[in-house]
Amino acid sequence: MTQLNASGPIGPVDGTVVPRFAGAPTFARLPRIDEIHDYDVAVLGAPFDGGTSYRPGARFGPLAVRTASRHLRPAYHPDLDVAPFRTLQVADAGDVAANPFSITEAVDQIGRHASTLVSPGRRLVTIGGDHTVALPLIEAAHAVHGPVALVHFDAHLDTWGTYFGAPVTHGTVFRRAFERGLLVEDHSVHVGIRGPLYDAGDVERDAGFGFEIVRARQLDRLGCDAVAERIRARVGDCPVYLSVDIDVLDPAFAPGTGTPEVGGFTSRELLELLRLLDGLPLVGADVVEVSPAYDHAEVTALAAATVVYEIVSLMARTAAGDRPRLNGAATSAG
Amino acid sequence: MTQLNASGPIGPVDGTVVPRFAGAPTFARLPRIDEIHDYDVAVLGAPFDGGTSYRPGARFGPLAVRTASRHLRPAYHPDLDVAPFRTLQVADAGDVAANPFSITEAVDQIGRHASTLVSPGRRLVTIGGDHTVALPLIEAAHAVHGPVALVHFDAHLDTWGTYFGAPVTHGTVFRRAFERGLLVEDHSVHVGIRGPLYDAGDVERDAGFGFEIVRARQLDRLGCDAVAERIRARVGDCPVYLSVDIDVLDPAFAPGTGTPEVGGFTSRELLELLRLLDGLPLVGADVVEVSPAYDHAEVTALAAATVVYEIVSLMARTAAGDRPRLNGAATSAG
Amino acid sequence: MTQLNASGPIGPVDGTVVPRFAGAPTFARLPRIDEIHDYDVAVLGAPFDGGTSYRPGARFGPLAVRTASRHLRPAYHPDLDVAPFRTLQVADAGDVAANPFSITEAVDQIGRHASTLVSPGRRLVTIGGDHTVALPLIEAAHAVHGPVALVHFDAHLDTWGTYFGAPVTHGTVFRRAFERGLLVEDHSVHVGIRGPLYDAGDVERDAGFGFEIVRARQLDRLGCDAVAERIRARVGDCPVYLSVDIDVLDPAFAPGTGTPEVGGFTSRELLELLRLLDGLPLVGADVVEVSPAYDHAEVTALAAATVVYEIVSLMARTAAGDRPRLNGAATSAG
Amino acid sequence: MTQLNASGPIGPVDGTVVPRFAGAPTFARLPRIDEIHDYDVAVLGAPFDGGTSYRPGARFGPLAVRTASRHLRPAYHPDLDVAPFRTLQVADAGDVAANPFSITEAVDQIGRHASTLVSPGRRLVTIGGDHTVALPLIEAAHAVHGPVALVHFDAHLDTWGTYFGAPVTHGTVFRRAFERGLLVEDHSVHVGIRGPLYDAGDVERDAGFGFEIVRARQLDRLGCDAVAERIRARVGDCPVYLSVDIDVLDPAFAPGTGTPEVGGFTSRELLELLRLLDGLPLVGADVVEVSPAYDHAEVTALAAATVVYEIVSLMARTAAGDRPRLNGAATSAG
Amino acid sequence: MTQLNASGPIGPVDGTVVPRFAGAPTFARLPRIDEIHDYDVAVLGAPFDGGTSYRPGARFGPLAVRTASRHLRPAYHPDLDVAPFRTLQVADAGDVAANPFSITEAVDQIGRHASTLVSPGRRLVTIGGDHTVALPLIEAAHAVHGPVALVHFDAHLDTWGTYFGAPVTHGTVFRRAFERGLLVEDHSVHVGIRGPLYDAGDVERDAGFGFEIVRARQLDRLGCDAVAERIRARVGDCPVYLSVDIDVLDPAFAPGTGTPEVGGFTSRELLELLRLLDGLPLVGADVVEVSPAYDHAEVTALAAATVVYEIVSLMARTAAGDRPRLNGAATSAG
Amino acid sequence: MTQLNASGPIGPVDGTVVPRFAGAPTFARLPRIDEIHDYDVAVLGAPFDGGTSYRPGARFGPLAVRTASRHLRPAYHPDLDVAPFRTLQVADAGDVAANPFSITEAVDQIGRHASTLVSPGRRLVTIGGDHTVALPLIEAAHAVHGPVALVHFDAHLDTWGTYFGAPVTHGTVFRRAFERGLLVEDHSVHVGIRGPLYDAGDVERDAGFGFEIVRARQLDRLGCDAVAERIRARVGDCPVYLSVDIDVLDPAFAPGTGTPEVGGFTSRELLELLRLLDGLPLVGADVVEVSPAYDHAEVTALAAATVVYEIVSLMARTAAGDRPRLNGAATSAG
Repeated sequence: MTQLNASGPIGPVDGTVVPRFAGAPTFARLPRIDEIHDYDVAVLGAPFDGGTSYRPGARFGPLAVRTASRHLRPAYHPDLDVAPFRTLQVADAGDVAANPFSITEAVDQIGRHASTLVSPGRRLVTIGGDHTVALPLIEAAHAVHGPVALVHFDAHLDTWGTYFGAPVTHGTVFRRAFERGLLVEDHSVHVGIRGPLYDAGDVERDAGFGFEIVRARQLDRLGCDAVAERIRARVGDCPVYLSVDIDVLDPAFAPGTGTPEVGGFTSRELLELLRLLDGLPLVGADVVEVSPAYDHAEVTALAAATVVYEIVSLMARTAAGDRPRLNGAATSAG
Repeated sequence: MTQLNASGPIGPVDGTVVPRFAGAPTFARLPRIDEIHDYDVAVLGAPFDGGTSYRPGARFGPLAVRTASRHLRPAYHPDLDVAPFRTLQVADAGDVAANPFSITEAVDQIGRHASTLVSPGRRLVTIGGDHTVALPLIEAAHAVHGPVALVHFDAHLDTWGTYFGAPVTHGTVFRRAFERGLLVEDHSVHVGIRGPLYDAGDVERDAGFGFEIVRARQLDRLGCDAVAERIRARVGDCPVYLSVDIDVLDPAFAPGTGTPEVGGFTSRELLELLRLLDGLPLVGADVVEVSPAYDHAEVTALAAATVVYEIVSLMARTAAGDRPRLNGAATSAG
Repeated sequence: MTQLNASGPIGPVDGTVVPRFAGAPTFARLPRIDEIHDYDVAVLGAPFDGGTSYRPGARFGPLAVRTASRHLRPAYHPDLDVAPFRTLQVADAGDVAANPFSITEAVDQIGRHASTLVSPGRRLVTIGGDHTVALPLIEAAHAVHGPVALVHFDAHLDTWGTYFGAPVTHGTVFRRAFERGLLVEDHSVHVGIRGPLYDAGDVERDAGFGFEIVRARQLDRLGCDAVAERIRARVGDCPVYLSVDIDVLDPAFAPGTGTPEVGGFTSRELLELLRLLDGLPLVGADVVEVSPAYDHAEVTALAAATVVYEIVSLMARTAAGDRPRLNGAATSAG
Repeated sequence: MTQLNASGPIGPVDGTVVPRFAGAPTFARLPRIDEIHDYDVAVLGAPFDGGTSYRPGARFGPLAVRTASRHLRPAYHPDLDVAPFRTLQVADAGDVAANPFSITEAVDQIGRHASTLVSPGRRLVTIGGDHTVALPLIEAAHAVHGPVALVHFDAHLDTWGTYFGAPVTHGTVFRRAFERGLLVEDHSVHVGIRGPLYDAGDVERDAGFGFEIVRARQLDRLGCDAVAERIRARVGDCPVYLSVDIDVLDPAFAPGTGTPEVGGFTSRELLELLRLLDGLPLVGADVVEVSPAYDHAEVTALAAATVVYEIVSLMARTAAGDRPRLNGAATSAG
Repeated sequence: MTQLNASGPIGPVDGTVVPRFAGAPTFARLPRIDEIHDYDVAVLGAPFDGGTSYRPGARFGPLAVRTASRHLRPAYHPDLDVAPFRTLQVADAGDVAANPFSITEAVDQIGRHASTLVSPGRRLVTIGGDHTVALPLIEAAHAVHGPVALVHFDAHLDTWGTYFGAPVTHGTVFRRAFERGLLVEDHSVHVGIRGPLYDAGDVERDAGFGFEIVRARQLDRLGCDAVAERIRARVGDCPVYLSVDIDVLDPAFAPGTGTPEVGGFTSRELLELLRLLDGLPLVGADVVEVSPAYDHAEVTALAAATVVYEIVSLMARTAAGDRPRLNGAATSAG
Repeated sequence: MTQLNASGPIGPVDGTVVPRFAGAPTFARLPRIDEIHDYDVAVLGAPFDGGTSYRPGARFGPLAVRTASRHLRPAYHPDLDVAPFRTLQVADAGDVAANPFSITEAVDQIGRHASTLVSPGRRLVTIGGDHTVALPLIEAAHAVHGPVALVHFDAHLDTWGTYFGAPVTHGTVFRRAFERGLLVEDHSVHVGIRGPLYDAGDVERDAGFGFEIVRARQLDRLGCDAVAERIRARVGDCPVYLSVDIDVLDPAFAPGTGTPEVGGFTSRELLELLRLLDGLPLVGADVVEVSPAYDHAEVTALAAATVVYEIVSLMARTAAGDRPRLNGAATSAG
């Protein structure tokens, strides 16, 4: 039942015809990637949590975020003045099949799958999974766009060394990304960091990997505008990869996560900060660490689904028209 | 065991005699309407959720809000400097028996029941139920006071057209109120609106129905004082009907609701905004959309119970003395 | 990406390739109905709960049961010695779009949709939704097979008259089915009934509608074999429609339901009773009243998913070969 | 608004007029004790949990059990063939105001309150609270009926000595009852006992207090009929006080309790055992130890509410007609 | 503050001095292994869940089971007539530090740690963790006692081949145990098996690995005595290793587990079956697969804690006196 | 296995060797008090909730806060620039055994136990329990340091008179502390107060007891810096006792508490205010009123654990070096 989208993007199932609690189980009830000819943005699930150090369960994150996304009424974004699903063809690319027992193999599977979906005109927004999944996703973006500036919303730096002998876990991915040359030197930034560190040297080492830090408590002093300005100044005009660990939100707003840390952002603050990134050249993004077994009433999953929607809206603001649409070359998933 | 209240209002059961977890199951442990001769404010339950588009369950809202209200220590409100239950006779009017299977009949039942309770000196604060119940309640207020200015706290506009062929649902009530001439033209305001819209035209149409919009994110820029000032300027000196959808709060503060939307108000902000409405001529109010099956530890129900208390306190600030008390004419419920 | 199933049924996604927490969101990760040429059994969602008298929420039942069904390892059923998804082509037919605000229209929509899916060789197993949905489903079965014997597992008779003026609700459907001539006279049976009645006459009236009753407590005295024997004796060789209200289970086994009643069956007893119906000519079935907001850890949804699997296995035991497979006539959904 | 009940008992609010989720918050939506002239059975709340050794919270038991009781459809009990609320006038007597900080005073308050409600023709069924409340309740029954045979459903003996120097706690009440001469010697029985003991001597001491023990596991060997027969043989024709600790149920059926013990009864077994006590001369009863904070989806509270209903039904089977109805002497609560 | 236990075993903290909700966080509030000179039975935690195929989280199992074990009153076991903690010195050996990212290393760490704790007179009861941990534990028992008969309570066979390329996971451990010669040929038994299989051949293959199967539904036909007799006949007089996957219980009794399967045992049945193994020569045991994030009110954790207590009681019945107590040779942990 | 700490403080178990979900169940996995020679700060549990007026359960507070504290990575506090567990020897002192049935005896037990732990160089941070426990803890601090200035974070004043005849409950402790001369006159302050009062006179009376009040809503107007400045000005250079009722947080951030009050602080605000007290001479502290049965996903317990960590960090900022370390006089617990 493949549908054509020659006459414009195919959007979500109409909520006035099929109630939101019924029907298509894709992200925001968008078409599946196999139902369209081509896409601008693919939403992919990466259900892997083998790199988790405390509470596991983010393997169920894509399922939970898609379920919560049914509730979005996503046609028009009044704050960004864009109708993302009319501007871009967005599609649900399903889940990567990742080996639950091997970080190495899972990272490889995610990387290979992502690389089939990403191209100059086709971007990927991925739902984790734990933060481990970000490494192969940045690699896939790097393969198309070269080194990226990382904008990283998180309670934690995720630039530790190794953990129990594992080089790639949810606490080490960005040091690995730096070491592999995936990041533009000195243009990346962590936002929302808080809580104690293993060591006073953690921060210095992190700076050595090319990161600037905006701690959560600084938001009170600086306000959203100034924080957004610092982020924009930091990334300059590099291609930007955006990685959002849902634990950047306070546990009140995101209880369903693996390593909660009190003193975080409110969801209103996070959405505001994201919107203030309007115009940055996003080449890829992920939203990770939703662990549904610890969620309540879909609060966390709905926050994550909304963040995905905001990211797609940001992409719609900047990227419309830059892709050779329907160019005859079928995508790997087409 | 009817009691007289000639010598002053009868207040809640004394919490130093009967522990709060025991005894009278009325709102704030106030007297039932059949226990007093007359009242200034009646608190009514409207347990109907047949107009819900996503998560149902607000039919259990009145039960949950009354249960949570046991915990209020309501004698004196220090922020508003008023002892509402000593200033006004407030009573619990029980629940409307509304047909769970017919929006039309339920709306009619609620309207007829409300009209027996409302008179120039007798006001109604209603606990929903879904937002559908607001329409007959505004009609009952209109019957006594004429067209009202609506102050509407909500994540959503609730001015859509029809939904699945039903003209009156929780998403359409205020367009219906406008169409029926219940509202003073151009004096109503939505506060706390957020999230995507079906259509960019939604906002324009909404303005056409005489509404101004204060979006949730504007609170950060404007602050509570300026937002309250906009509300006050908007309503002028019209009689005000206040409708609070509990989803105006962020899901962290009100998970127990039917259509949660991230990025909302904190409970401290909502209480502050309400208190800054001090002096407005409130002629009626409702607090709706508490869906207890999605609540946790009564967080949502307690927020709603507190909002009811704040509203009654506001009424006590303005309306004391304006009612011909104990005037011989028994109320319909007396 | 339509696939052929000429060479045998297409089964679930392979759990050794795609982890169960990933991938296809269909029932038991079976193919969608649009991915195959034809089917023997379609699993349909009927997400409607507008006929609920107490706790609503069964509108989310199909979503929850499909999610829980991921966990099934469904290849071979050792108790019934059948591999149902190799014997029959089973497919997920998605959800009916049913009007949430009108029982009448929803019942009509479900009936029309079901009638496109049912034919002499194509059977339907439906996931509710509240019990209201059973009426149009029995009508669809009746249209193909004529009057049926109803085997009805439930805590409640569901043969009351009207409720709040509504003739068709979850408490009245089987009286309506009787009145419309959908049932073979005196060959139907309720199993698992318990709890108080409105009236001693309820039972007599129920008998007048042609039902026999096996109360839950009788299971202790009779044992599963004898109860199954009574059911089999009752239905004789009539075509059988099987309707399972999940509240036939005790609330310990199925907390996530709308009208729980203590003293019910264990899940082991229910599965045993179902297996003892081996050989009955099932022409259709439903599993209803899963209300996920009241569930915990998917206990109820998993029980319902397992019941669906048992029913399909029973169908595989009797019906293999009786359908003109791949007969050139595309189904309405094909 | 006192109503007369000269023409027969006033029953619950009609569920076909007022939906069960609305209206009167009394037990089973029965009239309050102040709404009727006299009563046969009063249902009383004793919200006290100061005698709890592990998980507290049973102070919220009466509230939770009343809320769950809304769901009962209590008119006719088909298993006992009785319409209890038509046979007896049953009323909700509200809650005792018991001091939460003093076992001694609370026990005294409960005893004094109960003694005003109990008389030869007026029986009391009390909802706890922790098991401490049973002592003053048995004393109130004893004051009218003399020594009673205790039928005690529980996981625990509750005949320990003292606990932290407190002579009356939820683990010691029946030793105290024995010592005070409230029990007929050698006619009492514990049913459902399980789990380890502090000491092998516990059982011997318990026998010394005149108790027989039926352990939970014996039910498997003996069956319900034989266990009921042992209870009946034990109590002979003594007046019977029935005390049901909800933890006699397995934690799967009653998670919401203070000292759960695995290996307990199913709710079907408990209901069956109670019904098999048909004909015993019940002079009073309690259902205790529902701790709602640990409950889920009202499973425990609904079980307790159903047990209260069963007890009232048993009372209706034996006691109809034995009370000088409407005898001019107003009750203390009348 | 090491204490001597020359004059008899040191038991749990006294619950009449230190309330059960306070104090020592060891299993059943027993002494830590470093507080005593020697022990008969050590209770060890193996918090590893890296071999889980569906819901993870059993890494928190030891923590949850120890917490729930506070509630045990463990002095005297009346059903087995033994005071296990007076008969044997039982101690809490803490947790193995197992690598959360490597099955291979974790299995090695658990094996090495266990081997320091097990000796001819010192037995180990381990709390998982997922079922993966059983393999090194059986190896440790094998090193001391030679091949063992496995008595395996579980919903699943756990004798599959490999899963995602991993030879040792929670679904494959017993095939690995067989292949490594750890089991006495043809003397092992699975009890409680249910649910569908991947393949009809699963059962045959399983038999080829030397197992007999008692399916859950057989318990209804056979009864506990006959099932226990089959187990006893099967194991003969071989040394027995007992492995209890908590999912042998129905999800109603054990919702907090990773791969729940409806139709399981009640907790009363499981305890009865365990007690009927009285006299078997248990050389080691584990209780695994408690995943607390899915538990409610500690129902699952309390069931597991009780099973540990039953196992220790069984060990106390058979093994008292067979150990050279206080033999001068300090244990590795002493 | 007592360890020496002559060469510097012994810190928490290393999270890179033993995963955080495993091993030592002490606060922050610090050493037990019996494992070290001496300490600067002891963390004590006071599991008593007999003084609770509404929801009980804080008796499980110490257990829950210790469990949540596993997740802290506590080595270096970047906001306060201190490594508290390297600067001070901090140890877990276990729980006080307090009589659950007698406020008087429990208060006495807590006071006596605390006095053995507090000395000029040894400070105590206590985890409640309900707020009743603060009275004996302040007395213990007073015995060493003389009258203290109280900095009290709470939604409620806790200076009421008596409640149900009990002079010492969680609502009256600070009036008692004032009356006993434990507080420096006019140097104490309540922060975060909100909600209605019993009486307008409550505030005046409270002032009469020497308190200043900073209401929660004032934080919006003043900001954290000004509020902290008011606190600092108020306490001057008196020795400070810090008492944090977790209900100072909004219920969204701390649902797991006994008397929740909407409109409270966010966790970020509370942490900021605490950090701005840097330099105050803290002589003791408590964190109380965590009631885990009402918590979700450890949100409340984690907030409380973080507050304990912040307090210890503040102590490390001011008190390093002021203690005669290892001075030969063994502590009572040493």
